Amino acid sequence: MNAYIISIGDELLIGQTVNTNASFIGEKLSDININVSKIVAVGDDEKIIMDEFKSGLEKSDVVIVSGGLGPTHDDVTRTCVVKFFKTKLIENKEVLEDIETLFKKRNRKVTDVNKAQALVPEISTPIRNSLGTAPGMWIEKDNKIFAVVPGVPYEMEGMINEFVIPNLSEKSKGSRIKKRRILQTTGIPESTLYERLGDLDELLKGAKLAFLPSIVGVKLRITVEAEDEKTANGRLTEIEQKIRTKAGRFIFGKDEETLEEVVGRLLKERDLKISTAESCTGGLIAHTLTNISGSSDYFERGVVCYSNASKVEILRVDEDVLMENGAVSMEVAMQMAEGVKSTSGSDIGISVTGIMGPTGATTDKPVGLVYIGYCDDKVCTAKKFVFGNERLLNKKRTTQTALDIVRKQLLGISLDD
Amino acid sequence: MNAYIISIGDELLIGQTVNTNASFIGEKLSDININVSKIVAVGDDEKIIMDEFKSGLEKSDVVIVSGGLGPTHDDVTRTCVVKFFKTKLIENKEVLEDIETLFKKRNRKVTDVNKAQALVPEISTPIRNSLGTAPGMWIEKDNKIFAVVPGVPYEMEGMINEFVIPNLSEKSKGSRIKKRRILQTTGIPESTLYERLGDLDELLKGAKLAFLPSIVGVKLRITVEAEDEKTANGRLTEIEQKIRTKAGRFIFGKDEETLEEVVGRLLKERDLKISTAESCTGGLIAHTLTNISGSSDYFERGVVCYSNASKVEILRVDEDVLMENGAVSMEVAMQMAEGVKSTSGSDIGISVTGIMGPTGATTDKPVGLVYIGYCDDKVCTAKKFVFGNERLLNKKRTTQTALDIVRKQLLGISLDD
Repeated sequence: MNAYIISIGDELLIGQTVNTNASFIGEKLSDININVSKIVAVGDDEKIIMDEFKSGLEKSDVVIVSGGLGPTHDDVTRTCVVKFFKTKLIENKEVLEDIETLFKKRNRKVTDVNKAQALVPEISTPIRNSLGTAPGMWIEKDNKIFAVVPGVPYEMEGMINEFVIPNLSEKSKGSRIKKRRILQTTGIPESTLYERLGDLDELLKGAKLAFLPSIVGVKLRITVEAEDEKTANGRLTEIEQKIRTKAGRFIFGKDEETLEEVVGRLLKERDLKISTAESCTGGLIAHTLTNISGSSDYFERGVVCYSNASKVEILRVDEDVLMENGAVSMEVAMQMAEGVKSTSGSDIGISVTGIMGPTGATTDKPVGLVYIGYCDDKVCTAKKFVFGNERLLNKKRTTQTALDIVRKQLLGISLDD
Repeated sequence: MNAYIISIGDELLIGQTVNTNASFIGEKLSDININVSKIVAVGDDEKIIMDEFKSGLEKSDVVIVSGGLGPTHDDVTRTCVVKFFKTKLIENKEVLEDIETLFKKRNRKVTDVNKAQALVPEISTPIRNSLGTAPGMWIEKDNKIFAVVPGVPYEMEGMINEFVIPNLSEKSKGSRIKKRRILQTTGIPESTLYERLGDLDELLKGAKLAFLPSIVGVKLRITVEAEDEKTANGRLTEIEQKIRTKAGRFIFGKDEETLEEVVGRLLKERDLKISTAESCTGGLIAHTLTNISGSSDYFERGVVCYSNASKVEILRVDEDVLMENGAVSMEVAMQMAEGVKSTSGSDIGISVTGIMGPTGATTDKPVGLVYIGYCDDKVCTAKKFVFGNERLLNKKRTTQTALDIVRKQLLGISLDD
């Protein structure tokens, strides 16, 4: 089964609202193995909306429309449905009762404008709305399904979860199962990863692999089709294993797992405490680590030592070493990591010092230069990196790289490229 | 001028990636008075993509395509462009140099896969990519404009801002001018702000006003139309003045200005140094302040004192006060602000301590409870807030509120609601 999603609303076109509704619906349809072929966003314009209804029904088995069901003059979706299907509006008793109950609950009087929302196209089965006043519509015609839901996210979500997906699921049964798995990598560029994996046809044998790069890493998305869940999972695991033999050390997690979750879990399992000493990232490493609920179990403290004075006073960095090598240096990175470890009494100290840009470069120290230091009871080391020119992106890459160094050290993976 | 936006990538259809790129492009086009008529998301499928190219060029003056330009097998956009425009690929020297420079800087070898990215369709002007390897494409044909940019958000943003918008802006001149101004507010809910502004028809006299709420504040977007720039700016300023008389103290900036920029500028103008002492925000305040280039001029240091020990050792918080009131208390917030100010020798100390959730609440201290402390040479104070249940949102709101307290103190605005 193929689906077509139509999102309606001017606010989507001028960038005022990000189309999270379409993503939500796309994900739910994919979960029940319905293939989304297209997502379209158009404004509140009758002609353009009806053109899309036509295209959608021509090209797909299922059309899902969201938005434009409100009670005010700028909402035209219901009118479009009536015109398009050459039907008429009739009052629906259950929907009217729903609206009256909702208003009673909120201690408000039902106005004529709200009562008019109980008028539904004769051709449709209304989808009841437990969270608002506008009913959805479900239309089956010529072997196609046409569903309309509101644009208000929680009302839309309710109808999709409680009505649309269960009904579609019933109809799409018997088709082959599609399953996905994501492997999260960091520290390896897309092209290098691609080359490492070698012959993809051989590796995938009919499955699909997508490379999804971002500033902090490349996600590998594997997609397989099979007759049943068990076979699909078996195929996914087989391909995952093959990828791991070729690039395992760059893979830090699966599906939606973040690097800070993985590092947090490793620290917790080993009952270790970590502290951070950040210069150029300005607190982003500590912020990222503490985004995880329960991080106080393993995060002891952080120091954002922007000034040289703070490096000396809080972290006990040697003033002579600082003067001789400069704040952005391998030696200072190591002393910072060692300093934050010992002064905090933590098991691990991690440090960064660098030039995030766009200003601050010197003849021998370019923008993007970063030293990351790591210190635990057995090893004290630092590593040099050169990232890009964009300040915020540099902070993010440095943070991800620092956390990945912790992960690798905890798992005994070499830091060499 | 009418525009059509095509976003390419399977990840958009299955709900794995929300289409923020299209919103970004839609907003930028609206800003220069180009009307976006449709946004379409399709998968990495040659036939479907080329059908969209055709529809887009038939229905609009401008087509903007993003995504599918990566170096791997699943990216097919460039191939589609070559086939659709019946052109061929030729190597572009400047693009090849860009790629080689980028790799040299990162100390990495240029692979054949990357070199192949310097091949651009003969019909197009390449759009250089300063942040990645894939060039964009700019094609002018039969009075239409067809632009292709990568799907990686920061690469896309760079090309849209630096190349696409300036070039389109040049071509769309001459029509009636539409101008927008944004007033950034924080610390006031949308409905309260709405009520404060009173009769909007009277206030706006034909102009438009949109309320754009987010977790850190409400943006007010004023839109006016006029024959020329000067008249438009005059109208905008007139409306801005009226809004300021009604809600001026909540307005911290204009257009894209951030609160951290405003606070940074105030500190710099007054030649003041600030230091931060963060418990529950875990470094986010320091990170936010140091996102501004040149922040080392006024940011001295930050301490992320997650443990009680760190509060006592680094910030000299009194152990008895800590025991008596608990870490999340007015008294500790004040001592933290005072401690970071005095130990760092800064002019201002700002502190936060609270419970960000979802866990950590006690009977008398709920999730969302935060104390923010502020200390300078004249005043030492703390204020209590209760935010929501979402950890990351709480960190963001606390950070915005702390920075707004600094702004208000520097400008002599009362902290009372």
